[in-house]
Amino acid sequence: MKKIVLLRHGESTWNQENRFTGWTDVDLTEQGCAEAYQAGELMRQEGLTFNRAYTSYLKRAIKTLNIALDVLDQDWIPVEKHWRLNEKHYGVLQGLNKKETAAQYGEEQVLIWRRSYDIAPDALSETDSRNPKFDNRYTQIPNSELPRTESLKDTIKRILPYWEKTIFPRLKFEDQLLIVAHGNSLRGIIKHLKRIPDSEIVRLNLPTAVPYVFEFDRHLNLTKDYFLGDPDEIRRKTAAVANQGTK
Amino acid sequence: MKKIVLLRHGESTWNQENRFTGWTDVDLTEQGCAEAYQAGELMRQEGLTFNRAYTSYLKRAIKTLNIALDVLDQDWIPVEKHWRLNEKHYGVLQGLNKKETAAQYGEEQVLIWRRSYDIAPDALSETDSRNPKFDNRYTQIPNSELPRTESLKDTIKRILPYWEKTIFPRLKFEDQLLIVAHGNSLRGIIKHLKRIPDSEIVRLNLPTAVPYVFEFDRHLNLTKDYFLGDPDEIRRKTAAVANQGTK
Repeated sequence: MKKIVLLRHGESTWNQENRFTGWTDVDLTEQGCAEAYQAGELMRQEGLTFNRAYTSYLKRAIKTLNIALDVLDQDWIPVEKHWRLNEKHYGVLQGLNKKETAAQYGEEQVLIWRRSYDIAPDALSETDSRNPKFDNRYTQIPNSELPRTESLKDTIKRILPYWEKTIFPRLKFEDQLLIVAHGNSLRGIIKHLKRIPDSEIVRLNLPTAVPYVFEFDRHLNLTKDYFLGDPDEIRRKTAAVANQGTK
Repeated sequence: MKKIVLLRHGESTWNQENRFTGWTDVDLTEQGCAEAYQAGELMRQEGLTFNRAYTSYLKRAIKTLNIALDVLDQDWIPVEKHWRLNEKHYGVLQGLNKKETAAQYGEEQVLIWRRSYDIAPDALSETDSRNPKFDNRYTQIPNSELPRTESLKDTIKRILPYWEKTIFPRLKFEDQLLIVAHGNSLRGIIKHLKRIPDSEIVRLNLPTAVPYVFEFDRHLNLTKDYFLGDPDEIRRKTAAVANQGTK
């Protein structure tokens, strides 16, 4: 059975502080590590044996993956890291506390910035120290491809080439792939797989560290998708994500 | 400055129990994790910024690497895992307690098995459940290449193609590479780099989790090699390794 499992990283220090994170490389909290462990346990109970895993350049995703693979006793599988799986770039909002931003700009504006499909926050200036071009890990990437802000539409646009050229074609040769990434980069993949309209993807709230399984037939057509774990727990986690950014 | 850093994994559960481990995929102990952390700290203080890392298919090496990269804040760099970097295969000895083996066969025989250059322990039978061909991770590898026992000479012979075709040529394009592996697989690389004769490599005891730096000029000639860290601590760790397998 061909399967791709999507996993959103566990709680990070800036999730906890309710700050816009984006491309900032913050760590997992202890709870985030525990969530990753639990996700690994759910996948182990499901008997998943992955051929390969994909993750972003950000440690909250990489460490979620490492912890889950260790629980699965599959530390050894090949892991490909790629900047295209990074979280949405939040422009000048990166680092700001979401509640403070909501108090200053109004909850509605914050919701637009966080959740509109094609409106991006203001871009970082070229010389802003947060500009990715100053970060060692992005020096090989043409400056024209590196974002200084992104709408969800932009995020999806930069993810899809990696999905279409690298990840999805793998499914011809391998049966089970794992992708550990971020709320918005995974939204891009889900939108594409489930053909969700632009207007609806904004309302899709992906719970943290809950394995989301996509099954495919031998022609690689999607046949089924479902979360692993306790439905009440998943509802609680989904609601917690939806409520971020309110005062 | 071109550099390759070799790092032997920290203490594993079977190191602690003094059992022959080889290709058995045992975990790090808490002390092993602490050693990996300390190794990361030493490399961080040295200002090492790696372009790429290599490790084996065994979790004691992979987890040592993951911990060290996290301390270095370099979680994101590409990591290539390869079975050719695995520890020496100890054949029928895998799983036996070294002290018991020494009591049964004599310390001298144990020392021959552990440390002779070209005498391998008896091979596992084709049908032994410990035969690597029954392990998921080696199914892509031709059975003729998979060991059921190895002398140090055999171990070095299977490592060198990976060193010569994959790792070393990278140094033309990238400046700093990290290899986290095992006592005997790293001996192979050190023997090759320092042109150590067969008769002497047997006496080289590599301390666990001490970064061993090799520097190269722009023609990729080795110019210098040295350990990072406190010399007394390194001597103590080297002596501890040398004393394994005595009653």
